[in-house]
Amino acid sequence: MPDRFTAEDKNYMERALNLALLAAGRTSPNPLVGCVIVRDGQIVGEGCHRKAGTPHAEVHALNAAGSSAEGADVYVTLEPCSHYGRTPPCTDALIAAGVKKVIVAMTDPNPLVSGQGVKKLQDAGILVETGLLAEKARKINEPFLKAIITKMPFVLYKAAMTLDGRTAVESGDSKWITSEEARHFVHGLRNTFDVIMVGSQTVLQDNPLLTCRNIENGRDPVRLIVDGSLSVPLNAQILRNESASRCIIATTKAADENKLLRMRETFAADKVEIWQYDTSRQVPLPDLLRDIAARGLNSILLEGGGTLAGKMLESRLIDQIMFMLAPKLAGSGFSPLSGLHLASMSEAVTVSQLVVCELGGNYSFTGTVDYNHTNKMGSDK
Amino acid sequence: MPDRFTAEDKNYMERALNLALLAAGRTSPNPLVGCVIVRDGQIVGEGCHRKAGTPHAEVHALNAAGSSAEGADVYVTLEPCSHYGRTPPCTDALIAAGVKKVIVAMTDPNPLVSGQGVKKLQDAGILVETGLLAEKARKINEPFLKAIITKMPFVLYKAAMTLDGRTAVESGDSKWITSEEARHFVHGLRNTFDVIMVGSQTVLQDNPLLTCRNIENGRDPVRLIVDGSLSVPLNAQILRNESASRCIIATTKAADENKLLRMRETFAADKVEIWQYDTSRQVPLPDLLRDIAARGLNSILLEGGGTLAGKMLESRLIDQIMFMLAPKLAGSGFSPLSGLHLASMSEAVTVSQLVVCELGGNYSFTGTVDYNHTNKMGSDK
Repeated sequence: MPDRFTAEDKNYMERALNLALLAAGRTSPNPLVGCVIVRDGQIVGEGCHRKAGTPHAEVHALNAAGSSAEGADVYVTLEPCSHYGRTPPCTDALIAAGVKKVIVAMTDPNPLVSGQGVKKLQDAGILVETGLLAEKARKINEPFLKAIITKMPFVLYKAAMTLDGRTAVESGDSKWITSEEARHFVHGLRNTFDVIMVGSQTVLQDNPLLTCRNIENGRDPVRLIVDGSLSVPLNAQILRNESASRCIIATTKAADENKLLRMRETFAADKVEIWQYDTSRQVPLPDLLRDIAARGLNSILLEGGGTLAGKMLESRLIDQIMFMLAPKLAGSGFSPLSGLHLASMSEAVTVSQLVVCELGGNYSFTGTVDYNHTNKMGSDK
Repeated sequence: MPDRFTAEDKNYMERALNLALLAAGRTSPNPLVGCVIVRDGQIVGEGCHRKAGTPHAEVHALNAAGSSAEGADVYVTLEPCSHYGRTPPCTDALIAAGVKKVIVAMTDPNPLVSGQGVKKLQDAGILVETGLLAEKARKINEPFLKAIITKMPFVLYKAAMTLDGRTAVESGDSKWITSEEARHFVHGLRNTFDVIMVGSQTVLQDNPLLTCRNIENGRDPVRLIVDGSLSVPLNAQILRNESASRCIIATTKAADENKLLRMRETFAADKVEIWQYDTSRQVPLPDLLRDIAARGLNSILLEGGGTLAGKMLESRLIDQIMFMLAPKLAGSGFSPLSGLHLASMSEAVTVSQLVVCELGGNYSFTGTVDYNHTNKMGSDK
């Protein structure tokens, strides 16, 4: 199949995708979108969608281009919307500006758009081409795409461990696993996710802040604590700290009523939310995640511990894993997915599309969890 | 520093090193040695040391060269011996052949040789150059070098595990972890080690053969079972199989006397040796390894399980690790070094000189255990 797109087309779309990524973690429940407007081989306007409720990428780019948009080519990473949401349809703005051609990376799976945007542009006599760098466009919007289709958030489980698979030694001590560079990378990751999720054991053991630190223009994600018996103390740093972002504690009927009341008294409702589920001890994880998505939060960075992560995997709620391996050996201790219990090795969950990177002396393994595939490859000894 | 050696010199020494490696696992307690003889830019003879008690590499190469050795350059990976061992000194043979120059990769740390070989050649008017590809020469003879200096064998701990660090699920089932290619690689590894070492739990759980299979000209290493309470059954495959190689069972005073007698009656003494240590339950691992080295066995491939490997690491007896990681997740289960117990993560044992390779969809991590180095790199959360 001959390529319909030129190298220049690809460069402009690449630029639009990079613009889109500038707002990673800011746009939920909306997608990341970038737009570049080109006339006579010159970029005359560009922009990205920055936050839900604010103008879309196309509008920023059209505003920058002004009258130069007339007769121009528009590169946009997602199909322009054709409906009235919190902002007017982008298709109308593009038509009004008199652009000649619109190149779209991927169509919008949102049933309110899905092909309608392309059709509306074509009906107005604008040339439309779709599919340029579509795979990459899908990749940057994995959380949005999962949420819009399944009403569940995208979950990345990130864990730091030793080469022998330990996230902590027997005492629970987990400090000093990965290198400074690797930890900085994780703070950057926090900056691009809507939610950080941990189990109560992690809060009790490490008393973490779970904020995004030392990242330029960083912002803290919503901090979600799964705490069936409401065991997190009132003086936990995660509740006390001055983050602009809120905490959600998910608990059950097992929570002590007095403690629950005291928590509600102690913390402002917009700082610490307590979601109490009608179960006896275990927070119903699929329900919790559905509720997270319903709040417009598309992406979760799960940071452990192993009991919670194992249950999340068992419930098939983890989409991707990122394991950061440090070149050291810890012996006995804690494991990243101890809450999962399998009867045989042949039931092990496959990780596909694995990407391995060296990062400051550590190794990151990033891959997609493939629940439908188990490997049967012969005996080992 | 200008390089004393030409690209041709390097090529010939590279060839000599590769010849040396052909006998990997066959020469203990002797080192691997390769030799290439060159006259007028032509290889006139070459050879390697094949087995202790048989001619050295230089002798094979000189025999192949015949009268062409006169005035030739000799590339040899280790300093020629100058003493009478089971064979006459190679220095005498080189002098008698009238070679012009001898290029040596590394001098022999064996106190019976160490510099004497070089001196004897020089005294006879032969030019001698040392240090060409010395690091590589050291690398291929790590077991010999460790054994000759410390009287202890070189130990590589090899383990197959999932990405979450599991060598088996809770039931003990460990089958189907790595790919066929990775397993084939392990059989090749067995072919180059003098000894395979496992704990009794591995024999009881997996009933393995621990032989070298599907490798051209492969041979089985000595199989060493650490079994403090002599729990391995008489019908274990490892004892019953028709391997040309022997088994050693290391046990203690905790062994049942009747079972010990029955084992000695059942198996020929040259097929199954039982070494009983004067301890109450735990085999004294440093003593055991010293006894292995005293038998002229320089290299051990430790294949688990985690309890034994953890104790070996605790006793600082492991030199290298090779972890084969399969892209799958197993949850709860067994770990590769569970017998090691550390008080804090800062005590974790560092692995240095890490080399990461992809192998049939699996990832091997090979590195040197660095007992004297702990990393202190700041908190993780």
